[in-house]
Amino acid sequence: MCQLLGMNCNVPTDICFSFAGFRSRGGLTDEHGDGWGIAFFEGLGCRVFLDTTPASNSPIAEMVNQYPIRSCNVIAHIRKATQGEIALYNTHPFCRELWGRYWIFAHNGDLKDLRLPPPRSFQPVGNTDSERAFCHLLDNLRDHFGTSSPPPADLLPLLAERTGALARNGAFNYMLSNGEALFVHCATALSYITRRAPFGAAHLVDQDVTVDFSQVTTPNDVVTVIATQPLTDNETWSPIAPGELVMFRDGERDAALTTKTG
Amino acid sequence: MCQLLGMNCNVPTDICFSFAGFRSRGGLTDEHGDGWGIAFFEGLGCRVFLDTTPASNSPIAEMVNQYPIRSCNVIAHIRKATQGEIALYNTHPFCRELWGRYWIFAHNGDLKDLRLPPPRSFQPVGNTDSERAFCHLLDNLRDHFGTSSPPPADLLPLLAERTGALARNGAFNYMLSNGEALFVHCATALSYITRRAPFGAAHLVDQDVTVDFSQVTTPNDVVTVIATQPLTDNETWSPIAPGELVMFRDGERDAALTTKTG
Repeated sequence: MCQLLGMNCNVPTDICFSFAGFRSRGGLTDEHGDGWGIAFFEGLGCRVFLDTTPASNSPIAEMVNQYPIRSCNVIAHIRKATQGEIALYNTHPFCRELWGRYWIFAHNGDLKDLRLPPPRSFQPVGNTDSERAFCHLLDNLRDHFGTSSPPPADLLPLLAERTGALARNGAFNYMLSNGEALFVHCATALSYITRRAPFGAAHLVDQDVTVDFSQVTTPNDVVTVIATQPLTDNETWSPIAPGELVMFRDGERDAALTTKTG
Repeated sequence: MCQLLGMNCNVPTDICFSFAGFRSRGGLTDEHGDGWGIAFFEGLGCRVFLDTTPASNSPIAEMVNQYPIRSCNVIAHIRKATQGEIALYNTHPFCRELWGRYWIFAHNGDLKDLRLPPPRSFQPVGNTDSERAFCHLLDNLRDHFGTSSPPPADLLPLLAERTGALARNGAFNYMLSNGEALFVHCATALSYITRRAPFGAAHLVDQDVTVDFSQVTTPNDVVTVIATQPLTDNETWSPIAPGELVMFRDGERDAALTTKTG
């Protein structure tokens, strides 16, 4: 299994504090040492940093930790390989373009015996269940909506239906974003916290680091952080219910559907 | 205009020496300070580093310079914006997936009044002539060859024909790779050097740095470096003729076609 970290905000915000705690779990405070990656949307643009070394001692992770990239949608992943060897092409998050936007996907779990129709517009490069599921979701979106992009909320029902079908094969916690919204599906474990004014101080679980958000925010900022396990030990994180697909927009929990298929 | 750097080898090789000289041209020894990017293929995998700050003082470029990533196909670009504002989504190289492989593209030049058919499988995210031309090339490859990948040599005639058509609109120096081969089109300026045993020492144009390749290679290594302007001042670089599309494979100039359309 792996761990996921996501952020969705109403103003571009850096994720250095959360990432500092999260990356410790990639080989230091936890065992997820089979590579890691992080994707930042900046407007329509997106950049993805990947490495096959443990996040806790990767030079790229160190640079990301020191370089405050401001983004409204971030997805990060630290890997404990289940399917697919440890290689760059199997390292999450994965990226594709659909409807003139980049789409980013990362998965925590294990989909066994995944039988899918042959890929159409989107083919996996590596050999993980995760990338196959991602390509399958995008193929379905493209087939259903054609060549132009619907509003994010219109994507939820189809995503929930396909997610439910895929989740029959095993644990399918994932994060998916096109830079407009962050879709988060919980199969086994995901929690989130929405920070807004009045901002307080937060202390990491994995490192003895505290940040006072009131010093680094403006009163209108709304920032939601989602993670497999809570990253701070002095705040109340809300669990996402297993079987729930949540769409976060502008820092808020915007809509949700249940993906349980019966 | 911009500058391009590419590398094609028969064994994974780091590009730190060449990149050290190249990045100096991004704001230090030359004026290309409107962002930069570099893509490394590692087997089927690919990672792209992008930044909108000048390459000469970007923290990401500094990390790339210090972290020897070994690759058989590299494409790098430093930007002097002509079309499209300075933004991450307009920063080269661009990446798409076709036939289960990543494709990387970077362009130096300016294609004016580009009239293209509507995108089909590949849509631009930003608003540069470069990304539009890239998506157009991939759309043509996909339409012509269908859903499975032909050998790289079979791509040359179609690429040459489409490149010739696009080059009617202006300077179209580009580098394109799927990790198997590196396609290089020269419109105005590109030179290359193929290094093989017996290896000697090379000295950069843009920094007073020398490397003795005999200390860091094995006798069978073949490494070709291609750049807009030669990067070393004590070696003989071969110009690529304007209107020539060259395919490099395993470090060798493997095949070439003329793209002139008469």
